[in-house]
Formats: sequence, C-alpha cells, structure tokens
Amino acid sequence: MSYIEKLSAIRQQMKTDGVAAYIIPSADPHISEYLPSHYKCTPFTTGFTGSAATVVITEDFAGVWTDARYFEQAEEQLAGSGFELVKLKVQQTPEYIQWLSEQLPHGANIAFDEKLVSIVLGELLHKQLAHLKPNLQHKDYLSPIWENRPALPSEPAFLIAAEFTGKAISEKLTEVRKAMKRHHANYHLISSLDDMAWLFNMRGADVSYNPVVLSFALITLEQATLYIQPDKLTAEDKYTLAKNGVEILSYDTIANDLQAIPQESTILIDPKRNCFALYKLIPAAVHTVLEINPSTALKASKNETEIKNTRTAMVKDGVAITQFLKWVKENVDKIEITEIAAAAQLKSFRAAQDGFIGESFNTIAAYKAHGALPHYGATKESNVAIKAEGLFLVDSGGQYRYGTTDITRVIPMGNNTEEEKTDYTLVLKAMIEGCKTRFPKGTCGYQIDAITRRPLWDFALNYGHGTGHGVGYFLNVHEGPQVFNATATAVPVELGMITSIEPGIYRSGKHGIRIENLVLTISDQSNEFNEFYAFEALTLAPIDTTLVKKELLEQSHIKWLNQYHANVYAKLSPYLNEEEKVFLGRMTSEI
Amino acid sequence: MSYIEKLSAIRQQMKTDGVAAYIIPSADPHISEYLPSHYKCTPFTTGFTGSAATVVITEDFAGVWTDARYFEQAEEQLAGSGFELVKLKVQQTPEYIQWLSEQLPHGANIAFDEKLVSIVLGELLHKQLAHLKPNLQHKDYLSPIWENRPALPSEPAFLIAAEFTGKAISEKLTEVRKAMKRHHANYHLISSLDDMAWLFNMRGADVSYNPVVLSFALITLEQATLYIQPDKLTAEDKYTLAKNGVEILSYDTIANDLQAIPQESTILIDPKRNCFALYKLIPAAVHTVLEINPSTALKASKNETEIKNTRTAMVKDGVAITQFLKWVKENVDKIEITEIAAAAQLKSFRAAQDGFIGESFNTIAAYKAHGALPHYGATKESNVAIKAEGLFLVDSGGQYRYGTTDITRVIPMGNNTEEEKTDYTLVLKAMIEGCKTRFPKGTCGYQIDAITRRPLWDFALNYGHGTGHGVGYFLNVHEGPQVFNATATAVPVELGMITSIEPGIYRSGKHGIRIENLVLTISDQSNEFNEFYAFEALTLAPIDTTLVKKELLEQSHIKWLNQYHANVYAKLSPYLNEEEKVFLGRMTSEI
Repeated sequence: MSYIEKLSAIRQQMKTDGVAAYIIPSADPHISEYLPSHYKCTPFTTGFTGSAATVVITEDFAGVWTDARYFEQAEEQLAGSGFELVKLKVQQTPEYIQWLSEQLPHGANIAFDEKLVSIVLGELLHKQLAHLKPNLQHKDYLSPIWENRPALPSEPAFLIAAEFTGKAISEKLTEVRKAMKRHHANYHLISSLDDMAWLFNMRGADVSYNPVVLSFALITLEQATLYIQPDKLTAEDKYTLAKNGVEILSYDTIANDLQAIPQESTILIDPKRNCFALYKLIPAAVHTVLEINPSTALKASKNETEIKNTRTAMVKDGVAITQFLKWVKENVDKIEITEIAAAAQLKSFRAAQDGFIGESFNTIAAYKAHGALPHYGATKESNVAIKAEGLFLVDSGGQYRYGTTDITRVIPMGNNTEEEKTDYTLVLKAMIEGCKTRFPKGTCGYQIDAITRRPLWDFALNYGHGTGHGVGYFLNVHEGPQVFNATATAVPVELGMITSIEPGIYRSGKHGIRIENLVLTISDQSNEFNEFYAFEALTLAPIDTTLVKKELLEQSHIKWLNQYHANVYAKLSPYLNEEEKVFLGRMTSEI
Repeated sequence: MSYIEKLSAIRQQMKTDGVAAYIIPSADPHISEYLPSHYKCTPFTTGFTGSAATVVITEDFAGVWTDARYFEQAEEQLAGSGFELVKLKVQQTPEYIQWLSEQLPHGANIAFDEKLVSIVLGELLHKQLAHLKPNLQHKDYLSPIWENRPALPSEPAFLIAAEFTGKAISEKLTEVRKAMKRHHANYHLISSLDDMAWLFNMRGADVSYNPVVLSFALITLEQATLYIQPDKLTAEDKYTLAKNGVEILSYDTIANDLQAIPQESTILIDPKRNCFALYKLIPAAVHTVLEINPSTALKASKNETEIKNTRTAMVKDGVAITQFLKWVKENVDKIEITEIAAAAQLKSFRAAQDGFIGESFNTIAAYKAHGALPHYGATKESNVAIKAEGLFLVDSGGQYRYGTTDITRVIPMGNNTEEEKTDYTLVLKAMIEGCKTRFPKGTCGYQIDAITRRPLWDFALNYGHGTGHGVGYFLNVHEGPQVFNATATAVPVELGMITSIEPGIYRSGKHGIRIENLVLTISDQSNEFNEFYAFEALTLAPIDTTLVKKELLEQSHIKWLNQYHANVYAKLSPYLNEEEKVFLGRMTSEI
C-alpha cells in the first residue's frame, strides 16, 4: 500500500464514521520517547522517520507537524506521500491544536487512538477545543490497514543484582508507598518504562538503546502487581519478584484490573506518563490524584552503589573515547574514515570494555557543516569522509552494566579558522561555567541553564537546544525529572542526580561545536546563607585544547580545565598502554 | 473589645454554625497587596500589623501564619491576644492548608469570607482538602463584631491626560478585546486595581502608596462598564469616559451584572486577581476561561510616552537622592539624624520636585544591624541615630505624575570593616552583572535572577528575597507579570518592561547591603542566533565607591560602573547647584 493509498483508506474510514479530523501522535501506551516498531505509526502512515511528529488528517488536508531539526528530512521523505510538512514554531508544542481550532466546525468529530495520547495531551485537546464543543473519540484507523504490523517486542527481561542496584525491590516499593500515603492514595498506576525498570530492578531490550521492558504496574499499600508478558522472565527472577512481594500478571490484563478498582479509592497517576485510554478506564467513583510518579524523583537521585558503578562506567567509556581520539588523529588521511566508519570504530572500542551492553543512542558523527545539525545521524547518502581540516563533532554514549554514558567532543582536524577557534573556546568556556557553578540547595535546572549560556550571550551567541538532560543508571539516556533548559520546570537539582552539560554553537553550512560532560550533584558547603551544592564532572575524557584562545577565558576557567585534565589522566592512564598514555598525556597537558 | 474577646465572639459564631475552622486571609475583593483600612482584618482581629498573614481559628487553636520577616514583630504584637504565631517555612505559601488537612475531621465545616480569597486560593482549598470531603462555606464573622469599621475609601479619582498615557482608553479597550477574541471570550471581568488604573487612564488615592481607585470592570466585545462609586469622578472625566465607550455604574452593582450574564457566554477571568465570591456568582452555564488579565501584559510593556516620562521622573528622583546623600554625609555627627528623621528629610527633598505625588512605599532607612532585616521599617521604639561608622541602607521610592521610582543605596558612614567592604563589592558586582546582561528574546525572569546571583554564589553567599519586581508607570511599585526571582514564572522579559535589580547580603546582627536600580528592557542586536535584548539603567543616582575592592571586580564591571556614573553626572548635574555638582562629581568619579 502506498502512502497515498493509506491516506485514502484512512479518509474512507473517517467518512464512514463522520470524523472531521484524525490525529496520529508519536507515542505508545507508555508515552515513550523511543518506540517499539509496533508503534512507529508516523513512518508507517507517511514515510517520515523523524521522532516527535504529529500527523493530522482532515477531509482536504493531511499534515505532519515537526520541528526545525527535521524540516529538510521531512520535505524529502514526504514528497509524493500526500502529506505536507507543517513547520513547528516551537519544538514539542502541539501547535496543530490551534490549527484544528481554526479549521473545524462546531460539533466536529475528532478522533485519535487514546492509547497514544498522554492524559495531559488528552485534557489539553478537550480544553483548547472546548469552544467548538467537539466530540472527541477513540478510533484506531491504522490497525485495519497495517499489513504485517510488527508484533509487540518479546525480548527477554532480567533482574539486576543488589551489587548493581544498591536497593532491593521491596525497599523501593516501601518508598513509593510512603509517597502514595502523602497523597492519600491507596492505588498507583505506573506505565512509564524507565520507572518500571528502576522499581523492579529489571532491564530488557524491548526498545532500541533503552534497556527497558514493556510492562505496567498497579501498586496498592499492600500489593504490587507487575503486568508483563510472563515468558520474558526466568523462573528464578519470578521467584525473586515474589519474594519482594510482587505478583505477576499478563501484560494485557491491566485494563481489566483498572476497571475493577473499588469505589472511594484514590489512585495516584502521572498525567504525563500514562495514556488517556487507561485513564478513562478508571471508574468515575475513584478519586484521581494527578502527580508525577514518585519513582521518578527516587530514581533520579542515585544511591552510593549506583554512583560508584557509574564512576566505573565512566573510566571504561573514557578509555574507549581516548582510544578513539587517538585512532582518528593518527589515521586521518592514511585510511578512509567516513562518519559511519568512525561511529563503528568508536562502538568497537566501547565493545571491548567489560560490561558493555550497547550504545545509549545513535552516535552523531558529524563532520564540518554536518555538525551544525544538532541531531545529525549519518546516512548512506549523507556520509562523508573526514579529512585533515575543519571540525569533527562526535556525540555518543554507551550502556554498560555499570551505568549509562553520554559524551560530546569536537576534534579539530587541522587548518582551523579564527571563527572556529573563537567558537570552540566560547563553547568550552560555557561548559566550564556550568560545571564549576556553586549553587544553593533548591536551585532548578533553568538557573543552571542561564549560568551556562551567559558567556555565549555576552558575545550575542546562543544555541537552540537545552543545556542538559538527566541520565539514567544503566537505563535511559534521557531521564527526568530534572532538565537544564530555559523552560519553567520547577524541579530542584538534587544530590546524586546525573545530568549533562552540553552547550554549543552552530553555524549553518560551516560547523557545529558542542562539548558535553555528565555531572553529578554533590554537597559543597553549608553556612548561614544556605546549603550549597556543586557538580563533580563524571565524564573522563580529554577536551582538545589546540584551538583554545586563552585570552577569552578567565583564570577560573583555566584552573578548572587543568584540574579536570589532571584527574582524567590519573583515572584513565592505569588502563592504557604506553602509546595511549603518551597520547593522553599530551592531550591533557596544562594550558 | 479586646483581641481575646474578639476571638471568643468569633468562636461563639463558629459554634452556633457548627464551623470547625475559620480562615481570615490578608486580602480585599480586588486581591490587593496594600489594603484599605476597611479590609485590614488581621490587625483588627489579632493586633498583628505585618502584611501577608493568614489567621486560622479552630475550637482549640488560633494562629497567625506569617513569614520570617515578621517573626519578631508578631511575637511581640500577638502576646496576650489569644493568637499564636505559626512560622511559615516558605514565604507566601498557604502552609495552613496542610495543617488544616491534618487537624480537621472528615466532613468538617470550613468557613471564610469568599470576598477575601482569590479564585486560585479557593480552588486550592477545595483540592487540597478534598480527601476530608469538607463543607467549604462563606461566612463573614468580622462585620458583626467590628464596631466603627472604617468605611470604604472615597478619595476622588481622576483621569490622566494623553500626554502622560500615550494611549487613549478606547485604544486600550481595543487591545483587550483582541485578546478576549483570542480566548474566544465575549465577557471579561477585571477586579485588580492596577489593571483598572491602566485601562481607564485613571488614578486615585484609595490605598496608601498605590495611586489606585476601588473599582471593577466588565468588558464585552461592544461595551465596557466601569463599576465605581460615581461621585469619585468629575463630570468632565465622566464625559471623557463616555466618549471612549465606557459606561459608569455603581461599585456594588457588579454582583448583579455578573449573575445576569447570558447562558452560553464565555468569560475571561484572571484566577489570581479576582475573588472567589464574584467567581461563584457567574452562572454555571457560562463558560469560564481562567487566564491572566490581558491588560497585565499590555501595561507592563511601557509605550514611548511612558518611557519618556519615566526618564524625567528618574532625573527628579536622582536629584533628590543626590541631595539626600550629600545631606547625610555632611550632617552626620553635626545634628542628630535618626532613621525616621532621615526618611522624612528624603521625602522633603522628593517633595520639592515638580510632579511629586507621594512615596511609592514606606521608606526603609535601616542603620547597621537594622539593614539585615530586608523589610525593616523604623518605629518609634526601634529608631536609632546614624553615626559616623558602619553602613546605612536606604530603600525608598517616589510617585511622580511622570512615573514611579524605587531605589536602594547603601551609605558607608565610616570605619568600615573588611567584611563590609567585601560584601559591598560583591553586591555591587551582582547588581552590575544583572544590569549588563545581554539576553535573547524569550528569556524569563528566573534566568536574569540566576545570572545576578552567580557572583555571590561563587563566594557561597546568597539573599533570601527575589532579585527584582516589575514597576508600574505612576502606579504600583510592585507590578507583574514579570518578576526576577527563582520561581518558575514563565513570563518573558519584554521590551519596554521596567524591573528592579536589587541583590543583597544580610548578616544578622551586623549589617545589610542591597543596591537597587530600575532597568528598562531595550533592543540590543539581532543575528542568526537570535534577537538579543539588554537593560538600560533608568535609575540615576551615584553608587558609593569608597568601599569597592577593585580586585574582586572584572574589567567589564569597572567599565559598566564608570559609564553609569558618567551618565548619572551628565543627566543630573544640570539640575544641581554648584556645591551639589561638586559633590556629585566626586561621587561619580572613575574608579
């Protein structure tokens, strides 16, 4: 079936049902960022493969709303599909709702698959379209026309041992129940897969890059039920779960159990991380408390075991990155190194490390102008060879059983311009500014974001993405609740949180520069003014200094950089051979 | 009637009605910050005169919830009143709701005067107490026991001319109606007095320091009705209002008119700035859109006329401040200068300026340790004489027909300690850091706040109040929507906004330092990265440099300070006599 034929088939169903608009979001019933193939609805329907798109179909228009990162790709992939690109003004904003509100008549029927819409989005649709007095309804128009739709993933799941988790499932359940009591809730539904993985000390491979397992949980003050395809777990793991007070039921039965919650109960449910379909199944006589999953905050502050293991993962990752930098610098112009080949080589260095499970996201290996596309992924068509000139940006990460890494370094390949040198120095200055910040307890990510950007704003420079994201522990590379960006996300930066700091400068058609470390929130000092926190740079890998213009830095930045490099050398050199040590020594020498 | 007798009379009424808890907020039906005497319910009931308190009375407890600024004062004033001080952990948070939620039985009757509760607070009470399934009801227990309750103020109101407003009432109504249409609203209720004053180009004297007029407005797409005590306005002003399409009705009739809104209408109403009582009068069949008053954003971005006049006000205020600084420095140890006398002298310098109407708030003249109390107001008991040593903090402002001012300066009286010098320099550094920030369009107050605090955080210092507040135009000295503080208030800093930047350091028992300028958001430059804004320092008054430790500043701070002082001298000196010029020349000389 061509995309044009699919569109026509969907419109036929709309006509039969009298539906004026059909919405296809990019999500699954767990409101995941990375989707199993079964839920890749936008690529199936339109051919567009970028993440974060929404498809809206009316009788005479079919559009794909996506953001600037994907404009070029969408233009190409949507050509001849019958779908048009609609350019988002602001990333991750449901601007199509405003469009619908202007296009549709009073009383229109508007349909979407309620499994793919979060509670927040479902309520927003109701609220923002209220003046139309529309009829919003659930329809799945894709299943009937989706031949050979991929099945739900059935990869095995496994529990991880106490030496890696630092906390038993039963302890975690106790903490979650404490939060439930604070909200006067006696039920709690969890759908989000990172929360599930943390709470049940469980990992899997149902989704690319994220070691998660399709599952739900319903927790009461006495019981905990894990809804999962039962053959994913070994008998031993099932026994461990039972010992921790966890009952196992089949993935699909969550729906029935939600409907059976007794009247007068109170259920705690995260409106951003549960789907509208399950929400609607909760009986009307049950009181709902819409609050963030307690596990989200609990898992964000890593415990001592997790921190210790993450430090181990950072050494392993740093060794691989050092080997990779050496390999690129020594082999450019000797053998052909394309962007794709470089990414593969980096993966093989990581794979040689003990405990490596896989990459934590698709490596961005972006040479010259490709670096200016912050989410560039090399394809066969775009792939170019690295030469001894310009800048080569590599943003990559690994999943180790010890933890999750995410690092960006820019390699100056030679012959660099003054503009490249200045931009490189200012990005480094901003990164250091973020890393060396001391801040009072209670400080939120938007404050760290502003402090990191200030050195760039001074020169009327800026970057269009956030400064940093939370990182999981052998789990997702993007995990909340904290985020370092300009949005008013009132989440304090807590002790034990791991977050990235990754400012950048992007000059379209020329180059992109981004330097990224992961940092751990640690205690600094207490006095009459407050309790102050600071960051420990967890990432251990050299930051190329050949382009640095010292006159653009203050003494405090130079001091930070030299201390950082001394630490990198001390931590990594024991795991390097002599040649590698010499290389790292040169890369980390004082400026 | 003593406070004990009042408490007992209230409890008697509660018993009769079966009410378990009675709440008395600090507010009026316009949810004002400054209250007319008629609504000073907390002082009447308990004797405590601090702003921002909530009284809660149950059968066996009577408490006044207030914040750290007032602990000492409250302890004193509440002694023997029957009321206990309850210390707020976080300023301006309704922590009493949690207390009620723990104290009261299921199904309890909870009462309060719904005229004194905002819609937000009313809904919060309903939501946070929902698990008790309480019965929330309106009761006014004060009127029956309040002998000689002050009448509502009946000061005359007046319209201000186009040369001062820059925009006719009819134009402003058109802008408000445009926003109503965006929200699909055909009715709009306004209760907040600063919005009223701006929209109707009207000023008055119903409240201390704020030149506002008790009034409401109900706006439709065709009509605008101003509810006001009719004899407040002259016939001429009434005629002007009529010409601009404004109908005038009596203050009290708003209630009837709200109840008469036709079914199927949509009303736009600001939940933070309207009272619960009026909200409840809106018929159920009317759709409510709870959004911030459109006039709040419109009035925050000053127009060219307002900016021009404000610059005039700043010159007048700067002259008065210069004269005051000279007077203090030259007369200390010659005549007795107490805190109260200094404030009076400053007022008289301001009063000599053309266009002066009154002070914009109660002057804080705080010597030595008094400066460590950020909201200190000298009383007869606390009043001390200024000597030739230590630090003297003066935070004050004026209402001029040209605009509103607010300025803080710290005067080193002599013999200052190293700690005072370091603190003074770092506060100045933070103030300059805020003033000289360049930032992209869309930046919010919390980002400016972080950038301003960073130089203090570097030294593990901080201050417990916000960095800045919006300032009105010959209107309230505290006006939103923008605010420079750490809270997640997603209001961008727009062109034409006037905001204060006032970091501080407070050492209990020793000294307080705060330096405050008002700044105007202006355009800076546009490039491929963004449109950048900057601040123009509106406030024109010397900042004492005798304590400055240059080694703690960067070149950029020194450059800013010298340029600022050159501008202060250029703008003020034409209005000074020779002696004053010499004084200002010395105060503004380069460092």
